[in-house]
Amino acid sequence: MPLSTQPYKGARDFYPEDKRIQKYMFSKMRAAVERFGYEEYDAPIIENLEIYKAKSGEEIVNDQTYTFTDRGGREVAIRPEMTPTVSRMVAARRQELGYPLRLYSIPNLWRYERPQRGRLREHWQLNVDLFGDSAISAEHETILVADAMLKEFGATRSMYTININSRKLMDFIMIDFLGLNLDQVHTLSKLIDRMHKMDKSLFVSQVHDVLTTDQKDAGLSHKIIDVLAVTSLNDLPDHVKESEAAKTLIELMEILADSGVSNAKFDITIMRGFDYYTDVVFEVYDTDPTNSRSMFGGGRYDGLVGLFGVDPVPTIGFGCGDVTLQNFLETHNLIPEIQHDIDIYAILVGEDYKRSQKLLATLRSEGLNVAVDNSQRKLSSQLKNATKKGITYVLFIGSNEIEEGRYNLKNLVTGEEQTLSPERIISYVLDQRHAA
Amino acid sequence: MPLSTQPYKGARDFYPEDKRIQKYMFSKMRAAVERFGYEEYDAPIIENLEIYKAKSGEEIVNDQTYTFTDRGGREVAIRPEMTPTVSRMVAARRQELGYPLRLYSIPNLWRYERPQRGRLREHWQLNVDLFGDSAISAEHETILVADAMLKEFGATRSMYTININSRKLMDFIMIDFLGLNLDQVHTLSKLIDRMHKMDKSLFVSQVHDVLTTDQKDAGLSHKIIDVLAVTSLNDLPDHVKESEAAKTLIELMEILADSGVSNAKFDITIMRGFDYYTDVVFEVYDTDPTNSRSMFGGGRYDGLVGLFGVDPVPTIGFGCGDVTLQNFLETHNLIPEIQHDIDIYAILVGEDYKRSQKLLATLRSEGLNVAVDNSQRKLSSQLKNATKKGITYVLFIGSNEIEEGRYNLKNLVTGEEQTLSPERIISYVLDQRHAA
Repeated sequence: MPLSTQPYKGARDFYPEDKRIQKYMFSKMRAAVERFGYEEYDAPIIENLEIYKAKSGEEIVNDQTYTFTDRGGREVAIRPEMTPTVSRMVAARRQELGYPLRLYSIPNLWRYERPQRGRLREHWQLNVDLFGDSAISAEHETILVADAMLKEFGATRSMYTININSRKLMDFIMIDFLGLNLDQVHTLSKLIDRMHKMDKSLFVSQVHDVLTTDQKDAGLSHKIIDVLAVTSLNDLPDHVKESEAAKTLIELMEILADSGVSNAKFDITIMRGFDYYTDVVFEVYDTDPTNSRSMFGGGRYDGLVGLFGVDPVPTIGFGCGDVTLQNFLETHNLIPEIQHDIDIYAILVGEDYKRSQKLLATLRSEGLNVAVDNSQRKLSSQLKNATKKGITYVLFIGSNEIEEGRYNLKNLVTGEEQTLSPERIISYVLDQRHAA
Repeated sequence: MPLSTQPYKGARDFYPEDKRIQKYMFSKMRAAVERFGYEEYDAPIIENLEIYKAKSGEEIVNDQTYTFTDRGGREVAIRPEMTPTVSRMVAARRQELGYPLRLYSIPNLWRYERPQRGRLREHWQLNVDLFGDSAISAEHETILVADAMLKEFGATRSMYTININSRKLMDFIMIDFLGLNLDQVHTLSKLIDRMHKMDKSLFVSQVHDVLTTDQKDAGLSHKIIDVLAVTSLNDLPDHVKESEAAKTLIELMEILADSGVSNAKFDITIMRGFDYYTDVVFEVYDTDPTNSRSMFGGGRYDGLVGLFGVDPVPTIGFGCGDVTLQNFLETHNLIPEIQHDIDIYAILVGEDYKRSQKLLATLRSEGLNVAVDNSQRKLSSQLKNATKKGITYVLFIGSNEIEEGRYNLKNLVTGEEQTLSPERIISYVLDQRHAA
């Protein structure tokens, strides 16, 4: 039986036309984050499993991670996320690295889940992290970078919102304001995280289930539902508004507004799935009704570096996956025509492969990308292949041309033909490339 | 117990200074192969195990591949090489893709082996493949691309040799010329592949063991040793020299010499480990005595696409790993000082984070990469951090500067300081960047 030509389930092959889009997206991501002084790093796709067990959140490690035992008996995982890895790397050089430290990466990540729109088993994810800044400037910068990245792709602020909350604020609300115990806080947090994915009545009944009889009798359900309905920091109960966490959020919203990030807003329902977040968290939402969903997000996770046995480092960051981002860009028509890398499709019209080498070497030495067709097939098939690949210029190389040192260059888009010397071919095609 | 900060055994973390070298290497690889019209593709790092079982060679699948069973019961592997994957992708679109088809990729590959110099458990490998060209022009181009890639890094021809052989020639020698049976051919092939790694006397005795008593009595051992000692195509026995395979090699060597590839040579001991090669094979050797080893290689493997149930496609390609290539570049001092991406380290000398945003936004909007230090630490610590990161320019931002609209820009290398308007900062630093 022949082998299957399908890629592994839930994963993608990137043919050249797909890879061009990916390269375009990665180059825009890089340009945006490098403008803020972030430097690229990378790490192995296999990690020891223990680093995920420590802090990623139970569901991810137990049900969604690719884990196996290697031939040396080590429990390992194909990384489902990059945050534990970058924390490990910073911890390994805790003293040598200078702070503030800005790192980014675009790793390939794997999760075992049922493939669906925007959720494959593998994706590439821009990870941006700022280490060693505990001030609110770190929160501001991180959100500004996320915003700048989308603007780099040509997105306007009406296309997305940046929804912001704080784990510390939620803890204050749940513990100090509502008087819940730690188990209840944990359960309610998970519930809020799924709030938008469930029916309101189901949510209300599940909140009710979290409470003790005394709490129910005291009407705590209503108090919870009411506070979760708040959409502006100003509308928070006074006791909550005076907390440090609320003050931080209020200041953050002010600086963001001042920087022109008019689409940032407080959203009390933003929790983020991972257990490791410690303070401000945010998610970026597509505003298009056909793709209305959280695209990506991040937040502060000050405790992770310290798990590796060194002094903690204040840290904040975000991750943005390529699949959801590409959906967003396609929804808003933000992916441009991407120029082909091949400048010239050179057709050898006779058996002159050996004699054509000098010309080909000359063209390439001047920086032109030249693909040779020595198939000796019918000219129509050769031209069809060049057209299919999206190449603009075809160069015909035969015995006469080689002898005379002048060649026919045809523009497949306009049909225009010229007979040129190698020097003129070079300058002409380079000019056209720069004009494009 | 704290978590370990070490990466998975035999794998590498890439801190920014390491990643800069990797990016430099990848960009040179890309430039070189794109000049020949190759287009980049990619594919999932996980593949169904069956595609390696089919043709990779027993040792690699049984002992060296990371394999596991996924949660859906599928036998999968973390890819140890890219050739089966690209063959699968071409087979999947056998009819749609136009030929000649030139593809390249720089995938991350994993093998379970004892880490040693030049052999880690993971590496990145440039893979270059030409599909649909059965003529000798394909062999020539592939070797020319390998050569151009090394030249792109500044290597000269005295630094490496390109050693060429042919599986077809070896089959002709072993079957037609020596009269061995297929089992003996298989065993002797593996033996020749390891020839340079073993003692000559051990090699001779193992060759002897391959033969039947009759063959030994007929002196076949000597005949084998003699033919394996040939170092020039001209010195092959006449019967061998007249084979199609030998003629192909002779023609190939001629075109290569004509293209100036003066360091290409016939090497009868080149076999390549993989079972799938069908004709010309080659390996590139470092000539430096301290790093004298095969760096990378490739060859023709016409049978692989056809394993996926479609008509076969003639194919030739090579793979070049980053670890061995970096060893080569370091051995020959070919890795340059790589310029830092951060243009300006902006130190906020007062509590002016909010008021500094306008200036920072202006600098970034003109394309400058600006890292902000809002740590409010001692100036000496902040300057030390900028120096440690290798950044040339420091910009001081305080209340007075913001009010006056002029800022102190210091060159950390020369010590020179200037007080400039934002416009002048932009033009000055961009000029310096372009001059670098």
